[in-house]
Amino acid sequence: MQVWTMAITGKQLFTTLEADGSLTLELDEVTVPEPQDNQVVVQMEAAPINPSDLAILTSKADFENAEYAPGRVVAKLDEPWLSGLRGRHGQRLVAGNEGAGVVVATGDAPMAKALMGQRVACVPGHAFSQYALAQAHLCLPLGEHSSEAGASAFVNPMTALGFVETAKAEGHGAILHLAAASNLGQMLNRVCQEDGMKLVNIVRRESQVELLRSQGAEYVVNSSDEDFMAQLRAAIDATGAFLGFDPIGGGTMTDACLAAMEQVAASKMSEYSRYGSTQDKKMYMYGRLDLNPTILTPRYGLQWTISGWLLTPFLQRAGLPTLIAMRQRVLENLGTTFASSYKARVSLEQMLTKEAILDYQQMKTGEKYLVTPQA
Amino acid sequence: MQVWTMAITGKQLFTTLEADGSLTLELDEVTVPEPQDNQVVVQMEAAPINPSDLAILTSKADFENAEYAPGRVVAKLDEPWLSGLRGRHGQRLVAGNEGAGVVVATGDAPMAKALMGQRVACVPGHAFSQYALAQAHLCLPLGEHSSEAGASAFVNPMTALGFVETAKAEGHGAILHLAAASNLGQMLNRVCQEDGMKLVNIVRRESQVELLRSQGAEYVVNSSDEDFMAQLRAAIDATGAFLGFDPIGGGTMTDACLAAMEQVAASKMSEYSRYGSTQDKKMYMYGRLDLNPTILTPRYGLQWTISGWLLTPFLQRAGLPTLIAMRQRVLENLGTTFASSYKARVSLEQMLTKEAILDYQQMKTGEKYLVTPQA
Repeated sequence: MQVWTMAITGKQLFTTLEADGSLTLELDEVTVPEPQDNQVVVQMEAAPINPSDLAILTSKADFENAEYAPGRVVAKLDEPWLSGLRGRHGQRLVAGNEGAGVVVATGDAPMAKALMGQRVACVPGHAFSQYALAQAHLCLPLGEHSSEAGASAFVNPMTALGFVETAKAEGHGAILHLAAASNLGQMLNRVCQEDGMKLVNIVRRESQVELLRSQGAEYVVNSSDEDFMAQLRAAIDATGAFLGFDPIGGGTMTDACLAAMEQVAASKMSEYSRYGSTQDKKMYMYGRLDLNPTILTPRYGLQWTISGWLLTPFLQRAGLPTLIAMRQRVLENLGTTFASSYKARVSLEQMLTKEAILDYQQMKTGEKYLVTPQA
Repeated sequence: MQVWTMAITGKQLFTTLEADGSLTLELDEVTVPEPQDNQVVVQMEAAPINPSDLAILTSKADFENAEYAPGRVVAKLDEPWLSGLRGRHGQRLVAGNEGAGVVVATGDAPMAKALMGQRVACVPGHAFSQYALAQAHLCLPLGEHSSEAGASAFVNPMTALGFVETAKAEGHGAILHLAAASNLGQMLNRVCQEDGMKLVNIVRRESQVELLRSQGAEYVVNSSDEDFMAQLRAAIDATGAFLGFDPIGGGTMTDACLAAMEQVAASKMSEYSRYGSTQDKKMYMYGRLDLNPTILTPRYGLQWTISGWLLTPFLQRAGLPTLIAMRQRVLENLGTTFASSYKARVSLEQMLTKEAILDYQQMKTGEKYLVTPQA
């Protein structure tokens, strides 16, 4: 049995939204709890700022006119976002889904003890910390890989693999993906090519079309083009993609995808039906990059489904053998299929500066930040 | 073998939408084709005007300023509805999902011949006719019931039973229903009471609250009340209704239902999650009474599904034994559980008058018209 003799303390980020709309992000010095059983303490070296982190970090608050101090910023969040986040009012929350670092202490369980001294990717939920308490069975030993290489080894890779598993399980041979030039989108593009899953990539800029084409993508559609709907119909017709994944949520893109699917299906019908085609059409919403309302028009009959897609329930449904196989595949291809890229590296203090926040709050496609808590 | 010696002719309604936006409804004299195999010819005595019929009959056309002549009316349909119905431009379509009448000729198949001379409910798809060609296996012999009693024996009863079957199959013990004072809603209220399925009825007027309560409904919520959301949350909390059926489609009601479900689920959570509760929430859209866009806000996480619900695919999934049992139950309870009521009775000619169209085009809850083609 390991003896816990030395208190480990380090900086940790907290985010607090008060009922009056003040959103405080601040660093605090905390003492890491003693790891129990299957827990490990990871000295964090790298943690990405994912869109799912920003939902809790910055939300829609006004960081242009916020009060900035070293290691602390207070911004204002307006309605309707403030009421929408009623559930967290007054709660001091941690942040940072995932990251990587070195295991410096462990609980008693053999799986935890086996990780002592190793560099691992982990999913602590408070990765924006100098030390994080993580579950050993969700840690991925990185071997010779750096923490930067392994920092995004969980959320995006598991999500990309999860999309392909979901499509296969529902009998699809093609996927449609929105915001497809993101880190996740580029990863999905590689996974689909490896697995023979056809992929329709939808992006917003010509440079993103070129980026994905240079990575071997066959179907890339630019929603800023005047003939976007015609491009989309052609790609759906060529691939048979009647299942899509949308990280945007708000606005009209999921609606446009369902409409294009229906137009392709209806063009093959021999006679008109007021109920639309009998082709099943499905869009999964896996994020809410746009918090504006989703708009659905009545132009694609009633043979469709829109459903939320979340990683955790998917992993629970998938079961341990599938999960283990997925993690092994990620580890073996961390530098290739599952590589991530970052626009900038920031320390915990730099993360809370105006310059950084105003940039990463925009969640621009392919411009992800990496936090380096030991810097 | 029956010999087809006499040509049967009668009036039939046609609806034609041209690309220029002119929508023509007109009666024409047609010769009924000779019934083959399993087909029967039904001399139609009664046919309801259902919302699904109105989608093809009147749509959103301007019947206030239409040109009316006996047995003919030409109205104008504007954008965006016109383009949305591109698939039917120039096609002369029949109308009338269901109705009842007397079988006056049949094909050779035993099931068809057995119906000769009987009064039946049928689903011909062109029920707004003096004679309709129907499939014998979808006919329901009415025995001593009148055609008026049997005119709505298919769509609403099968839909109400289908909702309960769907809920049971997905593991639910409670249903939420919008526009719940409709003929279908009242029927569902009776079916749910008989089957022990809890039902949250959502209506828009106090008179509808009273109507449903007088029919034994336990949970009735008025969306016009100021405390509607609080009423809805209380009813969901009391029943556990996390599955709903919505015939309206457009607007914010499905959104409100998902939000209320989430608020009930979140109130039972011990800690805040940016992903919302883990409670599955589902709304089926089974109609589009409101053709305005559906609005979905980002206030209920991503653990939800919205899906179209259509009767035909449900019946195909249900299988023949279930279908037969459902039809038997309908027949045995036609005057009670599955009774429909009508606001007015109109002949085929009266159906095309300004007074009638302006009234039934509004699809007011509980104000259904019955067409009597022999009048």
